[in-house]
Formats: sequence, structure tokens, C-alpha cells
Amino acid sequence: MNPSLNDLEQWYDKNAERTQQDYFEFLRFPSISTDPAYSPHIHAAASWVETYLKKLGFKTEQWKTSSYPIVFASHIVNPAFPTLLIYHHYDVQPVDPLELWKSSPFEPEIRDGKVYARGASDNKGQCFYTLTALRAFFELCKNISLNLKLFIEGEEESGSRGAFEVLKTHREQLKADDVLIVDGGIPAPGIPGITLGLRGIIAMEVTCRNSSIDLHSGVHGGIALNPNRALIQMLAALWDEKGKIAIPGFYDDVINPSQKELEAIDQTIDQERLRQQFGIQAFQGEGGYSLWESNAIRPTLEINGISGGYTGVGFKTVIPAKAIAKISCRLAPGQDPHRVVTQIHEFLKKKAPAGLEITAKFEHGGKPVRCSPDSKIARIAADAFTEVFGIPCKKTLCGASVPLVADLAEACGGDAAVIGVSLDSDDFHAPNEHFGLDQLRQGFLVMGSILRRLMP
Amino acid sequence: MNPSLNDLEQWYDKNAERTQQDYFEFLRFPSISTDPAYSPHIHAAASWVETYLKKLGFKTEQWKTSSYPIVFASHIVNPAFPTLLIYHHYDVQPVDPLELWKSSPFEPEIRDGKVYARGASDNKGQCFYTLTALRAFFELCKNISLNLKLFIEGEEESGSRGAFEVLKTHREQLKADDVLIVDGGIPAPGIPGITLGLRGIIAMEVTCRNSSIDLHSGVHGGIALNPNRALIQMLAALWDEKGKIAIPGFYDDVINPSQKELEAIDQTIDQERLRQQFGIQAFQGEGGYSLWESNAIRPTLEINGISGGYTGVGFKTVIPAKAIAKISCRLAPGQDPHRVVTQIHEFLKKKAPAGLEITAKFEHGGKPVRCSPDSKIARIAADAFTEVFGIPCKKTLCGASVPLVADLAEACGGDAAVIGVSLDSDDFHAPNEHFGLDQLRQGFLVMGSILRRLMP
Repeated sequence: MNPSLNDLEQWYDKNAERTQQDYFEFLRFPSISTDPAYSPHIHAAASWVETYLKKLGFKTEQWKTSSYPIVFASHIVNPAFPTLLIYHHYDVQPVDPLELWKSSPFEPEIRDGKVYARGASDNKGQCFYTLTALRAFFELCKNISLNLKLFIEGEEESGSRGAFEVLKTHREQLKADDVLIVDGGIPAPGIPGITLGLRGIIAMEVTCRNSSIDLHSGVHGGIALNPNRALIQMLAALWDEKGKIAIPGFYDDVINPSQKELEAIDQTIDQERLRQQFGIQAFQGEGGYSLWESNAIRPTLEINGISGGYTGVGFKTVIPAKAIAKISCRLAPGQDPHRVVTQIHEFLKKKAPAGLEITAKFEHGGKPVRCSPDSKIARIAADAFTEVFGIPCKKTLCGASVPLVADLAEACGGDAAVIGVSLDSDDFHAPNEHFGLDQLRQGFLVMGSILRRLMP
Repeated sequence: MNPSLNDLEQWYDKNAERTQQDYFEFLRFPSISTDPAYSPHIHAAASWVETYLKKLGFKTEQWKTSSYPIVFASHIVNPAFPTLLIYHHYDVQPVDPLELWKSSPFEPEIRDGKVYARGASDNKGQCFYTLTALRAFFELCKNISLNLKLFIEGEEESGSRGAFEVLKTHREQLKADDVLIVDGGIPAPGIPGITLGLRGIIAMEVTCRNSSIDLHSGVHGGIALNPNRALIQMLAALWDEKGKIAIPGFYDDVINPSQKELEAIDQTIDQERLRQQFGIQAFQGEGGYSLWESNAIRPTLEINGISGGYTGVGFKTVIPAKAIAKISCRLAPGQDPHRVVTQIHEFLKKKAPAGLEITAKFEHGGKPVRCSPDSKIARIAADAFTEVFGIPCKKTLCGASVPLVADLAEACGGDAAVIGVSLDSDDFHAPNEHFGLDQLRQGFLVMGSILRRLMP
């Protein structure tokens, strides 16, 4: 017999204490994937997840890659039943600026019903309610008529290199009818929604060098071109005065959604909430497009980091030898990550003053993705959200990226949907990341409801 | 009887070993004035200098200021004799990037006849040969017909705040006929020169903030204006395409030297040497002016530091809450430091997108200075350089600044000249700062020769 929402609620409330203990254990691994110094912790987090899944009754494996392993788990009941693949990641973002955290990022702390820790939301919190829902499902459900596969990677926050590799080498094992990418969010507290599109991404680092050592801004000022100045002038030329990206041909490949596609999608941007929650003062979209369009369906270019010369306490009158910028783009359907990287590099080289050395390093990339609102998995997920939240589920597009999604959906050959209960106010790439205990329960119930609904 | 150059040479060579030991002791104080964390070391360096001068026979004092003390020493023989005031500083620049140092910045090491340490050249090396020359002078000279004053400050590298204060409160004690600012250099190895002008300076920090916390470049990208982008676009507008500063009125007050003044001055810029020594690839002066003019007589604006977002290992897809830039200008005669700071701040505020918060913090400033080539002290200093180096002494203008010079010369009421034997290849604001043992000896001989020549 299938567990009802009521069964799931009762099970959760009875098991809440143990659930929270296990969740905290998971959060304590500082599994920061972008910095190689954290490598041992990444591996420890992978093993913890694998062991947890094995205890639930899954057949587990760690797929080796040229970087971090994929935790793969499967529970195949009968090949005749539908197969669901669930995607998560066990790595997290860096924690700096550390001084802005109110509690240690890897020692979870509950304040006002929210768990504060790096990864509390993205993606350990969401991964953990899936694990909990699977545990409940196995305990509550006598006859499971569904095959389950889990794909949990360790490099989502730094380009998914290993995951892209195994999509080629483990194609057969990944086959599924439906894929759930559980790394998404809901539009606002209490408002259910599923995500039917993500933007793609490219990330690169640009270095601009003029001398072999730092120079003196008095002795050499007026003679040597300052790489800080050269770099900012090159970068400033990337946008026109209307906020459009000024690289020739940048928008050529963008495919905007049709009117019919747009009709299915919620197009709300609550500026007042963004102002209050994040203190955002200046809003700027792409010239000719609304803020929602600029965020959801149009590509962007952002300088995620810039650094050159002395920026510590006090002053140092230096002309630095070099300056660097970390640049990323969010890509719209139609855009090819490699083409965009080349376009940016060529543009900057053309803008660079003679003699200056410009190098660009491609960091990582991922294609944009759009899911059909009419697929079985999209409909079931929306129904589950509607059931748990008690109001109709919205369908949204998200400006963020999960680099792997497009390729993963393609590799497993099924329909995909991106879901989750995170909130943009979870501060998931910022200090004091948090996840409400209510969100943990909501995510559990949604996932349980989906599992039940997927059984024929 | 007056010591001859030969007497000074013999004395130096006999005392070289002890001289070097004392010099190393002085270099070991990490007296970085810009960072308050080094405060105890600044005070220790001041006490060391004071004790050293007391042992030489000077009457010494430490003048308290709102920040670091001035070491003042005097040796008054007879008010009828001429009085010379000598200026030095005992503080040093920060040491970062520390990883580029080949030996510890505060543990001096000799390699290839050069002493490597922070301050080895600027200004502890130069200060130390003055101290040594005074010691030799007292030992070799039976009847000294010269009054001596030393003014050694501890904040030259961070704005000379305390020194500016005592110029007002200790005016009477500072009275002198001549002032030597021993913080200058020679044009190239083996080429003697004295400096008859320095540019002024202002330093400020600009902060550009849009949100109260860091944002996510996917979730908020295309909605929130990125402070990195806003800041670089504002800063990029500071120059026109010819390398001229685009702030309206910026050049209005600049007084270019007359043709007659220029004729006394050496106007060489050796680009090939700069290319080889510092690896400088791109040269850029002010549009319409030569590189020499751009460096020596024209003002500049440099971004000494810029920072915003994540610039560590790997990548972080963040839209930072704020971005900052450290900006300095070198000023030409006629320009007022406070007016320039206001011009920059107003310009940036005008360029800032609506809603963005722009704050500017004035860090420090100093007026430009020009000395007469015909004064007694300029002629005597030039003769001393000619004697020691064996070829005619050049007269130069320097693009660097000693913020205090103009006000110090004015306060003591005498003629000033800026001298020294540092080289721009000493890397004095960069890693691996060094000072040749030959430079130490040259400086000693020049100073000894000047002291002898100043006696009536």
C-alpha cells in the first residue's frame, strides 16, 4: 500500500530527532570543491553519503573520475517498472568572507528554527531530505513498484568535471525514464514551484600583465601602463550604456522562448522583497528586456572577482605587475559555452593596449537547459508540490545553472525537471547560509509524494 | 682640520664591518607604518635610532604626535654657524606579496654585494649612511663649525600625519639655513644626480556598494547591478583614449616649468633599461606629453589596488556586496591635494549608477615641491656628488613624492634639496628590496663631503 501524505507526516515527526543528527553529521564535512586543499574532506563526504545509502538498502558504488568521485546508488526492483534518477551534489561553496559568519560554517547551529552552516541549503540540506524520504519510503511501502537510481556528485560548485566524464563512461547504468535534479528552489516562502529551465554557464579567469615585478607609482607613474587601469578599461567595454553585452555576435545564438512557452511560466520579480532581503539598491537588466527576462531567459556577463595591487589595510603606492578578473556568463538556450569563451577572449585581446600580455583560462562551463511542462515527471512533481503546500504549483525558469543538467538528462534518455525547496534568501553562496527546519520537512514531504505518485 | 675624501674613504673601510652590523640591526625592525598591527615595531625602531644618535653625541628627543613619534636630534655648536637640517624616515612599506621574497624581508641577507631586506634602500639604508657619516665626521673633525639637526619620522610611507603636526608645534626648533631630504636617488648606477623637484601626492579609497550581502550571480544575475562592474566603469571613465585624466578641471592648476627651468634639468628616460630591468612592456604617458614630462612634471592618477568578489583558488559565482579601489594621484606644482580629492570624488559620484552607494575616504596627501638649482645647498650637494662619482652631477626631477618636503622646507625657512643614492632598481616598494654595499659607501662619502663643504 502506498503511504499517504498523512503517513509521511507522522513518520517524519516521529523520526525528526535522528534525522537532524544525521543531517548535522553531513554538514560538518568542509567539502569545498573549488579549492584542492579541501580534497580529503570531499572524499570523506562522499564516503559518508555512500555508507548512508548502503544502510538504506541501496547497491552503492563510487565512480572514480580524474577529480572527485560520483556516488552512484541503485535499487532495481523490476526492469518493467519505471526508473527514476535523482541528482544531488555533496560539495559546497567556499566560506569566505569568513569574518561575516555568525557561527562556524562547518559546525551547524540552529537559530530561530533555521540551521546555519555552509551547505545547509545548497545542496546538503536538499540531498538530506531526499535520503530521509527514501528511508521513510522503504519503511512505509510494502511493495515498491519503482526502480531508483541516485547520482550524487562532488563538483557541482566547481564545474562538474568528473561528472561530465562518467556521463560518457557509465551511460548504460544511467538510463532512466525520469530525472529529478533536486538543486532548485521555490519562488518564495510558502509558494510552491518547479523549475523548467536553467541558464548555462561559463567561468574564466583573465590576467593582464605589464611588468615582471610590481612598480612604484611615483617613480614609474606616467611611464608604465598600470595593468589595473588596462584591465578595467577592457572590462568596462564589455557592456554598452544600456547594460547590453557589447561583444559582437554575443546574442546571435540566443533562442528566446515562444509566446506559448512563456505563458506556462510565472514571470514575477518582487523587487521590494529583494530590496528588503538583500539590501539591493541598484537594479539593472539588459537594455530592452524586463528584469525577469534579463534574469530568466537572457544571458549575462558578470565579474565575480577582480584583484590587482594592494588592497590591505592602509595604502601602498604600487603599480602592480598584473591584475586579474574572474568572469562568468549565464547562457541562454542556443548559446555554446566554448564559443562564448572564445568571443570574450577575442574581444578583450582586441581591446588590450599594445604590448600588454592578456591570458585567459577557461575554468568550467555547462549548457543551458529547458524542460517540457507537459512531461510526466513535470506534472507529477507539480502535483506533489501542490499537495504539500496546499496551493497551485507555479512553473518557473531559474537564472542559476547546474552545469551538468542538460548533459545528464540527455545521457539518461528521460524527461527532466528541476525541483527543490531552497529559497534565494537561504544565502547559499554567501556567509550564514541556512535552511529552515520547515523547509527540510517540506522537501521530505514533496519527495515522498513524488515517489508515491511515480508508482504505476 | 676638515676631513678630505681620502680621510673619509679610509675611515669607512676601517669601520665597514661594524657599520654593516649596525645597519642589519636597524633593518630587523618590521616598522611598517601603514598597518597598525606593526605599531610596537615602529616604536622600537624609533627608540633604536634615538639611542644611536645619543651615542654619537647628539641631544635627542622623541616628539610625540597623534600617531608615531618624530626622532629629533640636534648638535648646536654656535648659533653663528650655519645650521643644516637632515630629513629621514625609519618606517618602511608593507612586504606583500610575501611569497615573492627570496629571503625573509626582516632578516637582511647579502647576495652579490647587495643587502636584501625591506627598507634596505628606502629609507633605512640611506638613513644609516647618514648616521655613519655623522659618526665619521665627529671622529675626524676637530673643530666643527656647523650646527646639525636631524628630523627622522615614522610615517613617510603612510602620509606623515605626525610629522605634519610637529611642523606646527615645533617650528622654532626646526629653523635651519639648509635642509637635505635624504630620500632621493641617482639616475642610474654610477651616474650622480640631485633632485630638484618631487611630485605631490593624494591617496584615497573608494567603495562602491549595492547590497547588504553577497549575491548569487545566477539567481540575481541580470537583476542586481554588480558593484565590480559599476566600479570599473566609473574608474574607466577617469581617462580619455589618449591617456589624459578626464576629470573636468583636473589640469587647470598645473604649472609647467619654464623653458629656463627645464634647461637645468636632465630629461632622460631609458626605456630599454626599464624594459630589461622591470620587464615593462607597455609604456603610456599623458597624451601630448613625452614620457619624461608625464613622469616628472605632469600629474598622474593610478589605481594602486582594486578588489571585489572572490579571487582565490578556483571560482565562486558571486555578485559581491561591494567593491573597492585604492587610488592615488601624483600632483604637479600648482595643484592642491584637497581640491584634487574633491574633484575625483565628485566625478565618480556623477558617473555612479542611480542607487549605488559611493563612499570615498581620504588617506593622505602632500604638496609637490620644486627647489632652486642656484641655492647654496643645491650647489654644494651637486659638488659633493661630482667629487664622489668623478663625473658631473645631473639635476633631475623625480616622479615620486615625499609628502612632507614642501611643508618641512617652509617650516624651517631654509633652502632644500632632495638627495640620495637609491636606484629605481632597488625594488623599494616591491619584493626583494635591496641596497648595494657600494651604494652604502657612496652615500656615506657624499654625505661626508657635503658636511665638510658646508663649514664656512
